[in-house]
Amino acid sequence: MQLQKKISNLGIVEPRIFSFGNNRDTDSLMLENGEVLFPVEIAYETYGTLNQDRSNAILITHAFSGDAHAAGYHTGDSKPGWWDNMIGPGKAFDTEKYFIICSNVLGGCMGSTGPASINPATGKRYGLTFPQMTIGDMVNAQARLIEYLGIEKLLSVAGGSMGGMQVLQWMAAYPNRIHSAIPIATTSRHSPQQIAFNEVGRQAIMADPSWDNGDYYEHEPPARGLSVARMVGHITYMSDISMGDKFGRRRNKTGNAETKFTPVFEVEGYLKYRGDSFVHRFDPNSYLYITKAMDLFDLAGEKMLPEILRGIEVKVLVLSYKSDWLYPTYQSQELVRACKIAGVETTYVEVDSTYGHDAFLLETDRQSVLISHFLATVTSDLLEEDE
Amino acid sequence: MQLQKKISNLGIVEPRIFSFGNNRDTDSLMLENGEVLFPVEIAYETYGTLNQDRSNAILITHAFSGDAHAAGYHTGDSKPGWWDNMIGPGKAFDTEKYFIICSNVLGGCMGSTGPASINPATGKRYGLTFPQMTIGDMVNAQARLIEYLGIEKLLSVAGGSMGGMQVLQWMAAYPNRIHSAIPIATTSRHSPQQIAFNEVGRQAIMADPSWDNGDYYEHEPPARGLSVARMVGHITYMSDISMGDKFGRRRNKTGNAETKFTPVFEVEGYLKYRGDSFVHRFDPNSYLYITKAMDLFDLAGEKMLPEILRGIEVKVLVLSYKSDWLYPTYQSQELVRACKIAGVETTYVEVDSTYGHDAFLLETDRQSVLISHFLATVTSDLLEEDE
Repeated sequence: MQLQKKISNLGIVEPRIFSFGNNRDTDSLMLENGEVLFPVEIAYETYGTLNQDRSNAILITHAFSGDAHAAGYHTGDSKPGWWDNMIGPGKAFDTEKYFIICSNVLGGCMGSTGPASINPATGKRYGLTFPQMTIGDMVNAQARLIEYLGIEKLLSVAGGSMGGMQVLQWMAAYPNRIHSAIPIATTSRHSPQQIAFNEVGRQAIMADPSWDNGDYYEHEPPARGLSVARMVGHITYMSDISMGDKFGRRRNKTGNAETKFTPVFEVEGYLKYRGDSFVHRFDPNSYLYITKAMDLFDLAGEKMLPEILRGIEVKVLVLSYKSDWLYPTYQSQELVRACKIAGVETTYVEVDSTYGHDAFLLETDRQSVLISHFLATVTSDLLEEDE
Repeated sequence: MQLQKKISNLGIVEPRIFSFGNNRDTDSLMLENGEVLFPVEIAYETYGTLNQDRSNAILITHAFSGDAHAAGYHTGDSKPGWWDNMIGPGKAFDTEKYFIICSNVLGGCMGSTGPASINPATGKRYGLTFPQMTIGDMVNAQARLIEYLGIEKLLSVAGGSMGGMQVLQWMAAYPNRIHSAIPIATTSRHSPQQIAFNEVGRQAIMADPSWDNGDYYEHEPPARGLSVARMVGHITYMSDISMGDKFGRRRNKTGNAETKFTPVFEVEGYLKYRGDSFVHRFDPNSYLYITKAMDLFDLAGEKMLPEILRGIEVKVLVLSYKSDWLYPTYQSQELVRACKIAGVETTYVEVDSTYGHDAFLLETDRQSVLISHFLATVTSDLLEEDE
């Protein structure tokens, strides 16, 4: 079953900014920890057209290092957005049918307000004075954006990894504002192993003297620490098998001019390159804040998961990937079990992929079949309800 | 089956040094890369008594951060050696029957010659002028020690992780000098994932400005980089399950005085503590050299594994641990397959443990049953041969 027609691409897309909270008293963002944030800017993009009854809107939530640029091309760019293989005309999130929205998370560094933003109270960048926002706060800011766009109820909200956490948060916090939800390769709360990998990344950044307690915006950023953090991340995104397929034990072609401890194997060179290039697009403080938000996320908290989900009228498609050892299948199965116990209509597929956690970005064909079918069902159920 | 009688401990043991290579021309250590190292010191310990026909000697080879102090107590110490639960009277490596030897690897920092040693040519510490030694070089140095102790043929050589690599190297390089071999939780060569984790550790150390291209012995060492490297290591030594059992999502009891990004969860505090305390006992340059030796190790190289092993008369016991994702079971199974094809008498057990890679240090009871039985068989076969 070849679903992707790949008839055309989205072409050039426009980055946008939604600003709110200019008035502290009437309009600011109250965070879960009680702090008040204002003003707030949320970078977002949209693809496709909102239909007349505003019923075809889908929110895409991005993973840790993602951004609002999910599909299409920015003027002059040679690479499309991060989920371009999933979003566009004839693709799983079909822009001929659906109106797709994607926004950069609160605390991010790709256009939304975060630690690198100017604190209006001081005229300086927040740095570590930025409040520790949560996945809940990210979703509350998204809800404001959706409201601003005039959409009462989303057809769906979909995302992988930390994007999946936001999807789960939408289910728990705004069940009446979504018809369906697609949490992919995610969990309702991090295991100690997941926390541990994030903590290593944070320690690598904070160990870099240039980090300067988060106050590095006037000088060199902690580039080497961030690079090490990103290297750890990349290992966890791949699988043992996919690394074996991609690199084996092939050596770098660097000639004989190697000095001691320069990368010998291709896998080392690849990770170093990915680590070093991450520095040009990511703010180290955002790395700290966002990973901490992921670690603190605990959908049910003191309660049981089914309690949180009971009574919600949201159709759910849960996807996980067999070789994903960072967000292992058992975590998705826990979600599915909780949904079933709570009486939530849930479909679950474990996709047999070797790509590890990256599968939600790479397993386009299989993921597309599942998602486009699910969205078609949700749409047709809605039409029946209307009749 | 309770094998460990724990009748008594070894008590106080003595660290020793074996020196050789004082004469460059007659006695130095020729390394696999062609460089010549002299003089060489190898730190070692022995437990139990060598019998009259010198047939009861077992060499224990240590893992990456191990040392020669495998069992018993040094004067004044409150903690015994790293494999004390396996070595002693009535234990698996029974010092009432066997003469146990353990030495610190070449390139190490626990008494053997390594990058922190004085280079006699300059009167200064080697640092990065130390040659890149290999697992083969480590084993060649051990062979010199065994010769010096007057032992023609070892009853066995046993070790886990990098210790297992040395065991495999003994099988390939000195098959006539060992009766049996016990490679545990190891591999004939690192996968790209294993290389990648080591490379992250190396990059963390080298990213620390105090590393100073390895020339830090006159000032502060790259302690923060080494700590981050060790944190990564510890995650890979445990399993998702064992971390869940040990830490869950329990929070640190640090009160409310937390500043931003101090560890919140117990698992974070644990890793940070283990990372920071590693600094007091390990030389960062040894970290670089030893992990590189592991990554470069490739027992068969251009050949096939069975080719390397064909015709050797060594009895082999291969052990792996089910939840060990750093040295996964399939790598041990590759070894076993190669041994079988090569006609080497091999027993294989995959132990069902949740401890991850650390299992070879923690699964005392099950490991003891298997090893003591194996050693008894090897011993009785030898007696039969003598008759």
